[in-house]
Amino acid sequence: MNITKNPQKYLNEEVTLEGWLQGKRGNNHVQFLQIRNSGKIIQVVAEKEKFSEEDFQKIKSISQETSLIVKGILVLSEKTEFGYEIQLSEWKVLGPSMNYPITPKEHGVDFLHNHRHLWLRSRKQLSIMRIRNELSFAIRQYFYEKDYLLLDSPILTGSVGESAGTLFETQYFDEGKAYLAQTGQLYLETAIFAHNRVYCFGPTFRAEKSKTRRHLTEFWMVEAETAFFSNSENLDFQEDFIKSICKTVIQKSSEDLKVLERDVSILESFLEKPFARLNYSEAIEVLQKKGEEISIGEDINAERENILTSELGGPVFIINYPKKIKAFYMKENPENPETVLCSDLIAPEGVGEIIGGSEREENLDKLLSRIQEEGLNPENYTWYLDTRKYGSVPHSGFGLGLERLVAWIAGLPHVRECIPYPRMMERLDP
Amino acid sequence: MNITKNPQKYLNEEVTLEGWLQGKRGNNHVQFLQIRNSGKIIQVVAEKEKFSEEDFQKIKSISQETSLIVKGILVLSEKTEFGYEIQLSEWKVLGPSMNYPITPKEHGVDFLHNHRHLWLRSRKQLSIMRIRNELSFAIRQYFYEKDYLLLDSPILTGSVGESAGTLFETQYFDEGKAYLAQTGQLYLETAIFAHNRVYCFGPTFRAEKSKTRRHLTEFWMVEAETAFFSNSENLDFQEDFIKSICKTVIQKSSEDLKVLERDVSILESFLEKPFARLNYSEAIEVLQKKGEEISIGEDINAERENILTSELGGPVFIINYPKKIKAFYMKENPENPETVLCSDLIAPEGVGEIIGGSEREENLDKLLSRIQEEGLNPENYTWYLDTRKYGSVPHSGFGLGLERLVAWIAGLPHVRECIPYPRMMERLDP
Repeated sequence: MNITKNPQKYLNEEVTLEGWLQGKRGNNHVQFLQIRNSGKIIQVVAEKEKFSEEDFQKIKSISQETSLIVKGILVLSEKTEFGYEIQLSEWKVLGPSMNYPITPKEHGVDFLHNHRHLWLRSRKQLSIMRIRNELSFAIRQYFYEKDYLLLDSPILTGSVGESAGTLFETQYFDEGKAYLAQTGQLYLETAIFAHNRVYCFGPTFRAEKSKTRRHLTEFWMVEAETAFFSNSENLDFQEDFIKSICKTVIQKSSEDLKVLERDVSILESFLEKPFARLNYSEAIEVLQKKGEEISIGEDINAERENILTSELGGPVFIINYPKKIKAFYMKENPENPETVLCSDLIAPEGVGEIIGGSEREENLDKLLSRIQEEGLNPENYTWYLDTRKYGSVPHSGFGLGLERLVAWIAGLPHVRECIPYPRMMERLDP
Repeated sequence: MNITKNPQKYLNEEVTLEGWLQGKRGNNHVQFLQIRNSGKIIQVVAEKEKFSEEDFQKIKSISQETSLIVKGILVLSEKTEFGYEIQLSEWKVLGPSMNYPITPKEHGVDFLHNHRHLWLRSRKQLSIMRIRNELSFAIRQYFYEKDYLLLDSPILTGSVGESAGTLFETQYFDEGKAYLAQTGQLYLETAIFAHNRVYCFGPTFRAEKSKTRRHLTEFWMVEAETAFFSNSENLDFQEDFIKSICKTVIQKSSEDLKVLERDVSILESFLEKPFARLNYSEAIEVLQKKGEEISIGEDINAERENILTSELGGPVFIINYPKKIKAFYMKENPENPETVLCSDLIAPEGVGEIIGGSEREENLDKLLSRIQEEGLNPENYTWYLDTRKYGSVPHSGFGLGLERLVAWIAGLPHVRECIPYPRMMERLDP
């Protein structure tokens, strides 16, 4: 009997519901119990006249988060959120709950994170998890339907992807150190030769000593790589991807977005129009005009990303950054060799960068000299360089940080609530 | 133009195809090039009379894995696997390929694994990856449609899930050691209180010094946890789950299963009948009757699992193992307190255990004394024990090893080919 999914099927019938007491209110004549089951809140009405004095007092004293089974007739109840309520006739406590630590009063951020295993039961936290669930599924469905092959890239790696110094390391038997992958990109690149279109979607790790509201040490990233694909096709693809998955989630998660009081119309307005595309040098000019002291060659920080999205009124692709502030594998821009064919997608509303992408350097000699310029050891990249030796082709790809996109969709200021168990510099538990 | 997906749309038209030369054959009058694109092999026919002597010699000398663009008329070709072929009129080499290491001759296992980044382009390897892709999607779709909430469990953990001693560890800033998770189960258990039905699906890690054909140090596991769910409901659920996802993959991956020469009818025959369910003690009796020297209390090794599935002619659930050889969180069997309410699902054809599941001990005191009996430190489980303090409920769950199921479906003897980049005791690269 799944009354949370199909209540209309059981209308005016006796039903049984298991769940947890999220809260209750009432008086000496009637008690309204809010029971949580499968993320829904169902009101259960206990009228005193149906029970002995002793039993009614017992009902009144059921404490928050007690698990119980209730029985009663399911009736329409337009005033309640669920639309139906149960007229209680019988109940049984399964598991008691004394002094549940999270009460309706305000709690500090640290307290809540220390109780993350319980906090997940809270209304807003559950809604965020449900949005994450819809988003994750929408992402996989998007790639599946476009014939992208899922290629789960390894976490334990011998060679080094992005920047050393921010890597978690572990002893790997007698093989020396293994590093937790920061990206699956280099592995994905090997697989485009097999299937043209590939993606991965899993946890990634950065041992960064940063404490911003946009950083986690463990976060989920979806990365895609496409053969015979230019940077400009890559941009179009990213835009379609973001618009498509966001629209799906807005539709599927409308109830949860209401719980979070997210103004969906703002989000929708961004998705209806084309995303702005701005050369890095144009972006610098815009910032300078707004009074920022920034010059060509500098990175664009979070605050300035925000200025750009406000100025342009929505998401912004910043394209073709200077070569020297971007990764070695990005393809040199033939029209301006000081820059590379790349893009960052900046989300508005203070969210900032959610995607980084580029066309990849497919020329073996150019790639090798970039590796040397960066002071990296080409020996660590032997297998990666092989991809440019045996049938190299133009190709592009990108990586999207899941938690940042959840934060944007849900309208949350911090990524730490966008993952079930956030890992930050000073948080490894629970 | 996506001729690999919709060839009939371009029949008798001039088409352009990008791809890699997988192989070629022919003579001085005609050359047949096998071009790989999106995992398909399309035959391209170069007739000498259409080209100059010099150009025809160039075509003849195109080497394995060269990337190229070809142009020509697409015609029906019933003899070829793809069903269509291209009559070559123009071609252009994009990226050369000299002395490609993997040739049609036989190579050793180590050599192939050292060249995994190239080996993935091979026919069979790509088919395995495509089966893995279909299976992964079928798993997620199964849970999504059953209203299970995806709860990505953390990889970096402070507390310890299963057996210490087989954990990879890493320094976590100033917080001490972090361990790579062996399971997401304990985290999932916290979330059933929020959403009743939850699952996770991600990489897990075991620093086991074993070199069997069924072990990887990094592998993907899907785990599900359900509130108000008995062990017997858990068994039914697992059986439906395995049957459903296997049938989906058999249907979607029929071409790839043909490439692997998998006899699908064997697999289908296992899925048509109910899976056998055997008490652990009955399993021991069966083994003893087959002449095995095994007694109650011993674990059932791979070889003996194989005897059981042969004897019973298909997949076997072994249920209710002795408490002392199973994990602390498994619920005591009320009918025989020396055993626990658990199950292992053993796949036939030498594959062995693919799922482990159990009802979980929901009683705080019993759980605590099991933790102490096992010599574990209850302080590491404070947050987990909280789940039994605040509204504890009966619940069950299970974990399925993805690579072992891929091995079974694909009919492969070793899990190492069932993941893009296998990690084993002596293999961390590429």
